[in-house]
Amino acid sequence: MVRIDGREPLQLRQIHIETNYLKHPEGSVLISVGDTKVICTATIEDRVPHFMRGEGKGWITAEYSMLPRATESRNVRESSKGKVSGRTMEIQRLIGRALRAIVDLPALGEKTVWIDCDVIQADGGTRTASITGAFVAMTLALNELAEKRAMKFPITDFLAATSVGILEDNTTILDLNYPEDSSAKVDMNVVMTGGGEFVELQGTGEESTFSYNQLHELLNAAQAGLSELFEHQRIALGADITEKIEERRMKK
Amino acid sequence: MVRIDGREPLQLRQIHIETNYLKHPEGSVLISVGDTKVICTATIEDRVPHFMRGEGKGWITAEYSMLPRATESRNVRESSKGKVSGRTMEIQRLIGRALRAIVDLPALGEKTVWIDCDVIQADGGTRTASITGAFVAMTLALNELAEKRAMKFPITDFLAATSVGILEDNTTILDLNYPEDSSAKVDMNVVMTGGGEFVELQGTGEESTFSYNQLHELLNAAQAGLSELFEHQRIALGADITEKIEERRMKK
Amino acid sequence: MVRIDGREPLQLRQIHIETNYLKHPEGSVLISVGDTKVICTATIEDRVPHFMRGEGKGWITAEYSMLPRATESRNVRESSKGKVSGRTMEIQRLIGRALRAIVDLPALGEKTVWIDCDVIQADGGTRTASITGAFVAMTLALNELAEKRAMKFPITDFLAATSVGILEDNTTILDLNYPEDSSAKVDMNVVMTGGGEFVELQGTGEESTFSYNQLHELLNAAQAGLSELFEHQRIALGADITEKIEERRMKK
Amino acid sequence: MVRIDGREPLQLRQIHIETNYLKHPEGSVLISVGDTKVICTATIEDRVPHFMRGEGKGWITAEYSMLPRATESRNVRESSKGKVSGRTMEIQRLIGRALRAIVDLPALGEKTVWIDCDVIQADGGTRTASITGAFVAMTLALNELAEKRAMKFPITDFLAATSVGILEDNTTILDLNYPEDSSAKVDMNVVMTGGGEFVELQGTGEESTFSYNQLHELLNAAQAGLSELFEHQRIALGADITEKIEERRMKK
Amino acid sequence: MVRIDGREPLQLRQIHIETNYLKHPEGSVLISVGDTKVICTATIEDRVPHFMRGEGKGWITAEYSMLPRATESRNVRESSKGKVSGRTMEIQRLIGRALRAIVDLPALGEKTVWIDCDVIQADGGTRTASITGAFVAMTLALNELAEKRAMKFPITDFLAATSVGILEDNTTILDLNYPEDSSAKVDMNVVMTGGGEFVELQGTGEESTFSYNQLHELLNAAQAGLSELFEHQRIALGADITEKIEERRMKK
Amino acid sequence: MVRIDGREPLQLRQIHIETNYLKHPEGSVLISVGDTKVICTATIEDRVPHFMRGEGKGWITAEYSMLPRATESRNVRESSKGKVSGRTMEIQRLIGRALRAIVDLPALGEKTVWIDCDVIQADGGTRTASITGAFVAMTLALNELAEKRAMKFPITDFLAATSVGILEDNTTILDLNYPEDSSAKVDMNVVMTGGGEFVELQGTGEESTFSYNQLHELLNAAQAGLSELFEHQRIALGADITEKIEERRMKK
Repeated sequence: MVRIDGREPLQLRQIHIETNYLKHPEGSVLISVGDTKVICTATIEDRVPHFMRGEGKGWITAEYSMLPRATESRNVRESSKGKVSGRTMEIQRLIGRALRAIVDLPALGEKTVWIDCDVIQADGGTRTASITGAFVAMTLALNELAEKRAMKFPITDFLAATSVGILEDNTTILDLNYPEDSSAKVDMNVVMTGGGEFVELQGTGEESTFSYNQLHELLNAAQAGLSELFEHQRIALGADITEKIEERRMKK
Repeated sequence: MVRIDGREPLQLRQIHIETNYLKHPEGSVLISVGDTKVICTATIEDRVPHFMRGEGKGWITAEYSMLPRATESRNVRESSKGKVSGRTMEIQRLIGRALRAIVDLPALGEKTVWIDCDVIQADGGTRTASITGAFVAMTLALNELAEKRAMKFPITDFLAATSVGILEDNTTILDLNYPEDSSAKVDMNVVMTGGGEFVELQGTGEESTFSYNQLHELLNAAQAGLSELFEHQRIALGADITEKIEERRMKK
Repeated sequence: MVRIDGREPLQLRQIHIETNYLKHPEGSVLISVGDTKVICTATIEDRVPHFMRGEGKGWITAEYSMLPRATESRNVRESSKGKVSGRTMEIQRLIGRALRAIVDLPALGEKTVWIDCDVIQADGGTRTASITGAFVAMTLALNELAEKRAMKFPITDFLAATSVGILEDNTTILDLNYPEDSSAKVDMNVVMTGGGEFVELQGTGEESTFSYNQLHELLNAAQAGLSELFEHQRIALGADITEKIEERRMKK
Repeated sequence: MVRIDGREPLQLRQIHIETNYLKHPEGSVLISVGDTKVICTATIEDRVPHFMRGEGKGWITAEYSMLPRATESRNVRESSKGKVSGRTMEIQRLIGRALRAIVDLPALGEKTVWIDCDVIQADGGTRTASITGAFVAMTLALNELAEKRAMKFPITDFLAATSVGILEDNTTILDLNYPEDSSAKVDMNVVMTGGGEFVELQGTGEESTFSYNQLHELLNAAQAGLSELFEHQRIALGADITEKIEERRMKK
Repeated sequence: MVRIDGREPLQLRQIHIETNYLKHPEGSVLISVGDTKVICTATIEDRVPHFMRGEGKGWITAEYSMLPRATESRNVRESSKGKVSGRTMEIQRLIGRALRAIVDLPALGEKTVWIDCDVIQADGGTRTASITGAFVAMTLALNELAEKRAMKFPITDFLAATSVGILEDNTTILDLNYPEDSSAKVDMNVVMTGGGEFVELQGTGEESTFSYNQLHELLNAAQAGLSELFEHQRIALGADITEKIEERRMKK
Repeated sequence: MVRIDGREPLQLRQIHIETNYLKHPEGSVLISVGDTKVICTATIEDRVPHFMRGEGKGWITAEYSMLPRATESRNVRESSKGKVSGRTMEIQRLIGRALRAIVDLPALGEKTVWIDCDVIQADGGTRTASITGAFVAMTLALNELAEKRAMKFPITDFLAATSVGILEDNTTILDLNYPEDSSAKVDMNVVMTGGGEFVELQGTGEESTFSYNQLHELLNAAQAGLSELFEHQRIALGADITEKIEERRMKK
């Protein structure tokens, strides 16, 4: 089988992570996964949401949006509609939850990290690209904060995400682009740590189902792709920060 | 280990499914899973949403809500807030997607099934109870419709859902109640067909992660619980409808 | 004349009040008036709204809602519409105002009682059933509070509500069900105390009018029905609480 | 007893009705009831709302608003709040319902009359002044329409509204101004036809109740005030239109 | 050329400013510019918005609205739509900004002046009439405040606004009414001080453009009209207040 | 005087226009004006808004937004707030109006051009950069459309925008960056055609005013800057398209 963009079933698309893409944010990244491009920024705020005050730990929250012409046909802005869609909320909650799994929140102290993922161009996998890119933006911001305030480095492991799926002909594929995503009968997002632990697993049969064996095949495919993504993150963050993360993971 | 309500780690709570609970809806159920009680209704509308017109197939959509005092402390109504929360949207999308996996949508024709899940009392697992109950309410409604209109019976398999989780002490447990759900470090919802295929798998580490082995243990626990839930559904639906479902599954 | 459900013109429907219907709320009731079923809960909050702070008296506020399939055809959720309808607001204000007439608000102190009336099944008279049921739920909650905090028992009289109407053929009827309510030319809701005083009187000609004599007939019919409703409330609350209420009424 | 503005208990405030107050609307009025001033306009639209299409009859609907400084202290605009308050909705529904009682809707045909009542200055009784003024604005608009289109004159009777109340000292008073309205323990709005029939009766004990005898006294007071208001409407509308209305009433 | 209402190209419409039009506001005016009629009120609040606290200076903010039948055909209320239109926001921001240019905000101290401009009848030029009228209402309110609190008189100059435009035949006209405004190819609003300085200049080609020379002609026309408007403001405010304003201007 | 970024008073910032920046839109541009970066896209839709149907001419409408971290401190998304701010609406209306002045709308036919301007990074002048960039994106889209459909080329002239201002020390400056924009006492946006005609002129004294002479100086400064901007547009669009535009201008 050859995929519509010429890839092998278990081949990732071209990955590019440009750090410090914007001048204002504490951390920022432009991540490209094939034609999917997302600007991820991290903003540090010196307080936590109301429901967490006084607990002595930090919080991480995310927002996700698409430019109207990130997509093939123009999508109406959520600001014009006056409300955020269910899909957007689902993605935002996922990004925040995933990042919280690899941050030492008590070490962070009563601060909030705001993650913004704005999709400039979409070709499938925007939520997984957002997580992979947001990890880098957040790490840049928190590393600088840790240095400036002589605070403990709070990132405890790498974190990346990718998608896997099963096509109509039962092929298992890695890193679905938009046409693949639309036609796949099973679609699974996997968020994993650099240490190989699952953070989030979301597998869905679209008017379809999948067996125990297929689940295994999907997870293996995901793992292979994630190893590559961690390598891209290491390069983007540089040796110093990579070392700090590895050190913290070792101590867990 | 003994659980706070005295159950064994892999024991379901008391299940009760009362069919035809309300007089107006085409199908209705009051499902109790321990102290969690949900009214599930199914409404059949003779058209599909705009984006599906002319495709000759049906649609299933779900709404989910909680009474303000379904919970320990009063939660503000979403109608008063003027918007539906991200959590609610996530659950609504999950219920609809899950049910669509076991309905022969072309056989249904251009009709929409509206599922309403209203939580009267909450003690954890409201989304999985909603799916398990909604399946019964929808099946009752579609069975009647199929008979009245001499239409092909469109349900192709049983469908139920449960939760599994990992506690701080690493015990794997089945069917989490609210206190367990709040304290578990890993939480997974599993939606499965009567034939043992996955429809949806959502595993989440809450500021935590889980290994490949733990995933296996969780899935085994879920499968045991789901077998029992299917038995409850069979009893609630009766022999006739059960047979129709089994017949359709065989032909897949 | 025989009514469509076989009742005499001045006969109430079957009344049933199930107390402590839910486990979480401070007071709760499932009230059935014929096929109309409403879950009424009372929640006590230890503060009053902003505009009442420092006055040393309590407040009672109500919210009312219907499940989507409480009705013959599915009604859209107000949370999906993003706003509460005028009809809902009118009913909510009526319930709160009515209950405030029989509570000694200074004795209650700076607390708010939140009343939630959720209609599970509707067949006319949902607002009057809500008031009658909410009175019981609130009394249960405030009685327990009074005992626990050694506070003065704050309920000063019974309170119930019913509807009366005039049909096209000029018959005066009591306790209208939905088809009667839709076709009546005059429709009146009467809220009364156990002592026989009016709390609220809302009479409306629907594209029609009514005379002074008809008003009298309507009020007499209402009074007869209300006496019966008070009897149901007494039974539901039990002798102890009934006695406390009668005592407080005597002292007025 | 002398009232704060020097009136007798059963004396109306100064009434003034200025017709054709604005140049654009089909009918318009500036009504003053003491210091309460309301601009009432009537707009005729050549269709009915969706739920009434094909029934061959007309519809009347009303909107009500206050200028921010109609009141002592500035009230926030409902357009800024993004939603209409419960009080506003209640009043709007009341005005529309009341006017529908004295219009021959089938004679009107599939048209909607939009009534707009905008309170320029408020000193109590804005909803009753709105009804009394709106009747005149609507009659002017419908008279012109009937003439232009050689349609049957559709107004079947006069319609006016006033308020009555019971003060703390048990005096019954007519036409409450704002300070009286705030302190009265019982407050009743009465909408009546020129023929002396009730259209709407809304009596409310504000944390208080009222007896059967007090109800009678209130209704008598209202009736006296309404007779005067009908006289003002007759003068404002002129002899011709008055005659047409009386004629239609006679034929009922 | 004769204009549709018989005016000369550079002739203003009939101006009338009625002060103290309402009894509740600190300052109020009914301004008529031809058939355009606007109620302008000024409300003084003893605090500033959150973002200005502690700066020791005042703030002026404006709201603008139209009655539904201020216009030829009925416009839907913004409160019903649940949001304020872009046009309304633009006008509100303009009114506030313009007034802030001629108030000594530090002399005012931490107070907010709320300006409300409610268009009762519209025939073009509602925003410029609003500014001209609001200036008078605000000056009345601030003059009284200054006297009562022995505060420095804070108005530093007169302020008025008018519109100018270019018709299809290239005539430059002053003070456009609604039909002229709809057909003009260029439309410009000019806000000026009594001392002849610009405060705001908004010139727009409607699917058209204008040259440098045309700009000059437009500005000359505006200046002539504004001189007249200042004269009307002087008369409305009276000699005393006029003198105070002139004095403050001299000292700038 | 030297400006904070080292520029001369009448010097533009560095301009860069990258065409075809995104793969999906019919026309797209990334424009940089110093550190201000805006993605402008043009989408062509084959119908016009409801109010324009049947007029046989096209429509151009614009939306504008900022990424949350386009700015120094994070700004809350308008989709989260559930409404679009007045500032955003003002800018959107300005962009659409300006572009409509140089498009032959009847030649376009019943089509809508949707312009989206998304500010990636903000440093003052985002609305003028949006207009300048949107012109290029729209021209690319309409040129392609005209070629594909053998339609008349509908762009009748170049269009660009810039800002000018007066600092506290009375220096007139061109192309204000954010710190200059915040401190300037007068601020003017000028939108002009390649032929030197004004399309829009918005001059505002911020708690300040400006004289006739200052107006002249501002306009001269603007004109100089705009000439340079047109040169950048010509280069970005290339010789072919530039020629088509010049041809159409000649024929006006």
